[in-house]
Amino acid sequence: MNAAVEFLRQNRAKHLQWSVDLCRIPSISTKPEHKDDVRKAVDWTRQRCEEAGLKARIMDTGGHPAVYAEWLGAPGKPTLLVYGHVDVQPTGDLKLWDAPPFDPQVKGDWLIARGSADDKGQVLIHVRAAAAWLATEKKLPVNLKFLLEGEEEIGSPNLAPFVHQHRDLLKCDQIVISDTGMPDDGYPAVTIGTRGLAFRELRLTGPKQDLHSGSHGGIVANPVVVLSKLIATLHDDKGRITVPGFYDDVREFSAADRKEINALLPDEKKYLAELGSPAFVGEEGYTVAERRSIRPTLEVNGMYGGYIGDGSSTIVPSKAVAKITMRLVPNQSATKIGAAFEKTVRERCPKTVSLEIPHVEHACDPYVSDRSAPIMKAAAKALKESFDREPAYLYEGGSLPILPMFKKELGADSLMLGFASPRCNAHGPNECANIRDLDRGAEAVARFLAYAGG
Amino acid sequence: MNAAVEFLRQNRAKHLQWSVDLCRIPSISTKPEHKDDVRKAVDWTRQRCEEAGLKARIMDTGGHPAVYAEWLGAPGKPTLLVYGHVDVQPTGDLKLWDAPPFDPQVKGDWLIARGSADDKGQVLIHVRAAAAWLATEKKLPVNLKFLLEGEEEIGSPNLAPFVHQHRDLLKCDQIVISDTGMPDDGYPAVTIGTRGLAFRELRLTGPKQDLHSGSHGGIVANPVVVLSKLIATLHDDKGRITVPGFYDDVREFSAADRKEINALLPDEKKYLAELGSPAFVGEEGYTVAERRSIRPTLEVNGMYGGYIGDGSSTIVPSKAVAKITMRLVPNQSATKIGAAFEKTVRERCPKTVSLEIPHVEHACDPYVSDRSAPIMKAAAKALKESFDREPAYLYEGGSLPILPMFKKELGADSLMLGFASPRCNAHGPNECANIRDLDRGAEAVARFLAYAGG
Repeated sequence: MNAAVEFLRQNRAKHLQWSVDLCRIPSISTKPEHKDDVRKAVDWTRQRCEEAGLKARIMDTGGHPAVYAEWLGAPGKPTLLVYGHVDVQPTGDLKLWDAPPFDPQVKGDWLIARGSADDKGQVLIHVRAAAAWLATEKKLPVNLKFLLEGEEEIGSPNLAPFVHQHRDLLKCDQIVISDTGMPDDGYPAVTIGTRGLAFRELRLTGPKQDLHSGSHGGIVANPVVVLSKLIATLHDDKGRITVPGFYDDVREFSAADRKEINALLPDEKKYLAELGSPAFVGEEGYTVAERRSIRPTLEVNGMYGGYIGDGSSTIVPSKAVAKITMRLVPNQSATKIGAAFEKTVRERCPKTVSLEIPHVEHACDPYVSDRSAPIMKAAAKALKESFDREPAYLYEGGSLPILPMFKKELGADSLMLGFASPRCNAHGPNECANIRDLDRGAEAVARFLAYAGG
Repeated sequence: MNAAVEFLRQNRAKHLQWSVDLCRIPSISTKPEHKDDVRKAVDWTRQRCEEAGLKARIMDTGGHPAVYAEWLGAPGKPTLLVYGHVDVQPTGDLKLWDAPPFDPQVKGDWLIARGSADDKGQVLIHVRAAAAWLATEKKLPVNLKFLLEGEEEIGSPNLAPFVHQHRDLLKCDQIVISDTGMPDDGYPAVTIGTRGLAFRELRLTGPKQDLHSGSHGGIVANPVVVLSKLIATLHDDKGRITVPGFYDDVREFSAADRKEINALLPDEKKYLAELGSPAFVGEEGYTVAERRSIRPTLEVNGMYGGYIGDGSSTIVPSKAVAKITMRLVPNQSATKIGAAFEKTVRERCPKTVSLEIPHVEHACDPYVSDRSAPIMKAAAKALKESFDREPAYLYEGGSLPILPMFKKELGADSLMLGFASPRCNAHGPNECANIRDLDRGAEAVARFLAYAGG
């Protein structure tokens, strides 16, 4: 193990160049004109896997291709499956970038480029760790598989069927994912919970077409007003969601858990300034840190109806639409909460408009890791030794539908070993990764492989 | 007078051709590529005024030009100013038209073309009546001025300054406008009231940019939710507007007035089916006919915030916008009500978001005509003789800002002598005018000129 770690230290410059080279490929999965670039990034990664000593190939998924790589020379040892992605988000407004997004810049401790943190830099940590073991020890302490896809940023539309189809190939004891973050630079973390999600779109129709608000105003229900009133009922004045049964299955965390969660909140004042809101709000009885991680929420993501151009148009709108997502926590069920929400809304919607709730497949259950599992202890030990600091355990407010999917298809739990900086600006301009944390991350993974091997 | 009426009867075919010819010109004032067509329509109308025996000229307004025409050979007699417009609305979706909008079709009693009702056909009624008098009697019973503009459909942006600048030229005792409707074909009407209007746009900002609803949901105010709650407070459960002082100046109409108004409502069931709403709603204690004419309203004309594309995007929106207009009735003041609304909204908006209400010039006071004025009696007599039916007196739900403007600039009241069918579909596809009512309208105006001359 020490040799592997030493190898990583000797090869930092070379491995940084890997990140630079991969980030130079504009593998934007959402844009058809970058289709070849996604394939190029996938193939480039396949080559690095082979360079590391893994057996690697490109596999067709029906959409953008994926890399599959493996080293299975440790019979009797556990098999880990590393999941990650080498596609990236669009750049957004180029004027907001200090340098072109696909012309990676190294500035002090930072690598600045689209994909540097999400997820190219983190994917390469695992390739680096495997390379280090295979270069120095000619073997790995565990059996290792890689599944690195090219369409995570468009919601992995082909991943579940692909995993289902190749469930024998992908069979493993544990999934490892490095696509999450750290509480601070140099402060390692394991993400142990993600929130679930239930989405519904409400479509209200009043008059069959927009009406002149002079000739017909005041005599029929205005769907925008009806929808506003409906939305106004969804939270009470304590910030709690009023859907009956909504909190029935919500796990109350222990005082110890809550203390740990609250210790991780960044400076509230700075955080609020970053968000730009005048004040924090939310569910009474819970802190900001708790509200965004272990408490469920209901947010209107978007709403529209009637005339939305410049100036005024004096109409009574025909239609109003709201897009609503609820974030769910253990042990809520997305199916159950989605149905309860729909029932409530249908009951509360007056008969003066018609209500349509189209069927949309966008739901996932919350996911929570077992902190007492041996794999968690292996991760904690490796992180502590590499970062010289006890790792934090994070509850992430977002949702990762792949976690329940992997559990269902492969029967395996996921370990979320993330190395992104809280300042990484994933999806935004000037995305960056802390090079020192990528280096320490690679060492941590090298150590983790040893401890996971037992 | 009888000779003039007889002349009109003899010249129906020729005058119908006038309407056809004018409707053939695509004078869409809102579209820059039709700029020359608006001028063409104005000039064509000038020529018809001269053909009728008036002295006519084109005048520059700063925008689209206008026709000014006059015959002032009746010293001691009242001077009437006919106002109208020869520009038209855009066609909208051409697929919804049975024939091209600017290829006028005559089918039975109907002339189908953009502008046939609004307002070309009605403008020509006055030119026809003047032509009839001048052809048969070589004089008119009153002094007559015409101001026919080319930008009514874009809100007459240059009209008020133009009228102000030419107030001596346009000086008159009474304004006559034919740009309103009839309760039914063959059922003449004078519109005696229009509602006023106060418009405000509310712009709420929460976080400075859209936030990930997983990472930051549940901790800051969602401006769409805040705006929904705000809108939900604007009406009480009796359908009354909750802005303090809103009803202070609202005139309660007499039982006789209300009876008259209610007698004019089209079949409620048919009307509802036309609108397409599941039910009528509105202010308790008032009928559908009253709610849309003599009662004030508050409507959200449009609202938007956050993600409004297809599918879902899990964000907490940064902004939410609502466009709200209040329709006002005698004796409400647009300035006073606009200010009261703004004050109320500012008081009710929580400090968890910021609220901006941009200054927008879009307001007008309600207008109401004096039913006992001699001019009203002259109109009633002429209408009754021409249509063989007592005219209806209409309160129009819409707003006509030019009425208070004319009153202010010229000191004259407006008589709204409208001949559009309730089925004319102004602004919509297959706009049409009832040819028989245009003919009877021309006779009515010819008679009206005699009675107005005393």
